[in-house]
Amino acid sequence: MEPRKGQRLPFGMNFPLLLLLSSLFLNLFLLSYLSIIFCQYSQLRWTSAAAAEAEAIAAIDCSGHGRAFLDGVTVGKGLPGCECNTCYGGNDCSLLMPECPADADSGDPLFLEPYWQQHAASSAILVSGWHRMSYQTTGDNFISLELERHIRLLHKAVRNAVTDGKFIVFGSGSTQLINALVYALSLHNSTSSSPAHVVATVPYYPVYKFQTNLFDGREYKWEGRTSEWANVSASSLTNFIEFVTSPNNPDGLLRQSVLCGSAWTSSYLYLLPYLHLPTALADEDIMLFTNSKISGHASSRLGWAVIKDEKIYERVTRYMLSNTMGVSRDTQLRVLKLNKAMIEMTYSSLVTEQ
Amino acid sequence: MEPRKGQRLPFGMNFPLLLLLSSLFLNLFLLSYLSIIFCQYSQLRWTSAAAAEAEAIAAIDCSGHGRAFLDGVTVGKGLPGCECNTCYGGNDCSLLMPECPADADSGDPLFLEPYWQQHAASSAILVSGWHRMSYQTTGDNFISLELERHIRLLHKAVRNAVTDGKFIVFGSGSTQLINALVYALSLHNSTSSSPAHVVATVPYYPVYKFQTNLFDGREYKWEGRTSEWANVSASSLTNFIEFVTSPNNPDGLLRQSVLCGSAWTSSYLYLLPYLHLPTALADEDIMLFTNSKISGHASSRLGWAVIKDEKIYERVTRYMLSNTMGVSRDTQLRVLKLNKAMIEMTYSSLVTEQ
Repeated sequence: MEPRKGQRLPFGMNFPLLLLLSSLFLNLFLLSYLSIIFCQYSQLRWTSAAAAEAEAIAAIDCSGHGRAFLDGVTVGKGLPGCECNTCYGGNDCSLLMPECPADADSGDPLFLEPYWQQHAASSAILVSGWHRMSYQTTGDNFISLELERHIRLLHKAVRNAVTDGKFIVFGSGSTQLINALVYALSLHNSTSSSPAHVVATVPYYPVYKFQTNLFDGREYKWEGRTSEWANVSASSLTNFIEFVTSPNNPDGLLRQSVLCGSAWTSSYLYLLPYLHLPTALADEDIMLFTNSKISGHASSRLGWAVIKDEKIYERVTRYMLSNTMGVSRDTQLRVLKLNKAMIEMTYSSLVTEQ
Repeated sequence: MEPRKGQRLPFGMNFPLLLLLSSLFLNLFLLSYLSIIFCQYSQLRWTSAAAAEAEAIAAIDCSGHGRAFLDGVTVGKGLPGCECNTCYGGNDCSLLMPECPADADSGDPLFLEPYWQQHAASSAILVSGWHRMSYQTTGDNFISLELERHIRLLHKAVRNAVTDGKFIVFGSGSTQLINALVYALSLHNSTSSSPAHVVATVPYYPVYKFQTNLFDGREYKWEGRTSEWANVSASSLTNFIEFVTSPNNPDGLLRQSVLCGSAWTSSYLYLLPYLHLPTALADEDIMLFTNSKISGHASSRLGWAVIKDEKIYERVTRYMLSNTMGVSRDTQLRVLKLNKAMIEMTYSSLVTEQ
């Protein structure tokens, strides 16, 4: 295939030479591109299937009125179906249901979903099949030291509570810790043989009453409204556990202890940086927080108590070990990632100022 | 660059032509390879960082005597350090500690770690930041319907327990369900005003006694060894809760109820397909299982009770809601993946035979 005369191209090149140069240039480009791709993906061996599965499910179209989850009920092709928001239906959540009542009672923090979708890469986590199978984790009492450290960092960044010199216990949501604290405080103050009086100011979170009555321990008893004991002489208030919720659930008011100074009080504070920035650092003997009110992950079930007194801390820990052997390490891993992401994306300037 | 005479190559080709053909062939190969790579990875956008992080941490060298985890305490370069097996130390777990005592008491199921490392791709899971944030999940009472379905499939495959027509409740490990069942059974049998007698045959799992005494509900009381009540007349055995563990923990013996027929009994069975294949299907009124004894994931904290009586099921459910608002949905997601993997890898032939 000799080049023929008359096929000369600009710049003195003939057609086969141009083809050769173009082909070599394409070789170079493709090899460079492949090396970049390899740098990015060559380390993905056993994780690529899980990653692809998560992306495929996140891409399922639910018309903006729902979403599909990895553990959703499977429909056609073995993929999970759409789970629609309230008042929407149909396979792809496109049907608006007529006369659908508003649910003013639900505390679902779904308004934070778009935040996490916008920060998808920094909040995703890949869990291997052999991740932390043992009962033990890095800290004593089944607590992740890294999660504890990041929780303390978050409190410092938001400046809502003093945690230095205090103990932290994790619970499966703050729900589990409520009864653990009632148990621990009732033993702490058991100079009398009668059970401790457990009280709260109305309107209060119904779980306080329901849970205290259901577990029905011999060491404590639900005694209703705090106001009924407000005028009792200080000397009679020797065996009380008072729930103080601030901002209060459900009315959002800032609250303080009513029986303060006369009884053991359990201050119960929400960490809600997007709703309420406290003017002063809370520094109570016992403070209770929940991740569902911070990152919006109610389903992960992670709360924590910040406790000053070592004996109360030990009793709460004993309760947690006996009740569930600590909080799921899968949950601790995920919440660690979420808290790291929040600190990095929102509070990094505040953390470095510490 | 005209070809010169004397440069002729075999088959009538000259050098530039050979170069051109080689280059074109390389381009074809690279383009085909890139298209395969793209098919595999093009859908990976927000998941690639999490996947790469998991692979990098799994590749940390701990000398075969430990492993690094995503939530491990960070050391140099911000990466988690090695967590060494018992009797090993050093930064990379290469130091064997002299005179290290054996721990015969630990129930850590770490012998199953290699199984999951061998099945890395099918057991890994990628959790998005917005995965299932709501309190609600697919089933009532915060239970994943897909996980419940796979647990029933697993029981059918292993043929160790009848679950058809029975209810299933999840707990944060079987530990949480033990007291939930004591609570539910003590109410169920409360014709007398005295608390229910809670008993077990020695040697028994120490948590039975420790937990029953710690929660100290007014409706039940720890009464020690079953044998002390074995010779009491049947008419006197009206308010008993008997723990029956088979294979027994800690001695592995197969057990049956001692007070059978005269008292409410709670049969407590481990699902241990690798240790014990039961000759007959268990079909007790109440059966308790834990994932830590199946897949080896003690740290995930997932157990379940299989319950025949609807009233007992409702009471156990009420306890779970009040105690922790169900089991962490992160844990349910992971255990679903593990159970799917086990069914697919080990029991698929048994499942399809159903």
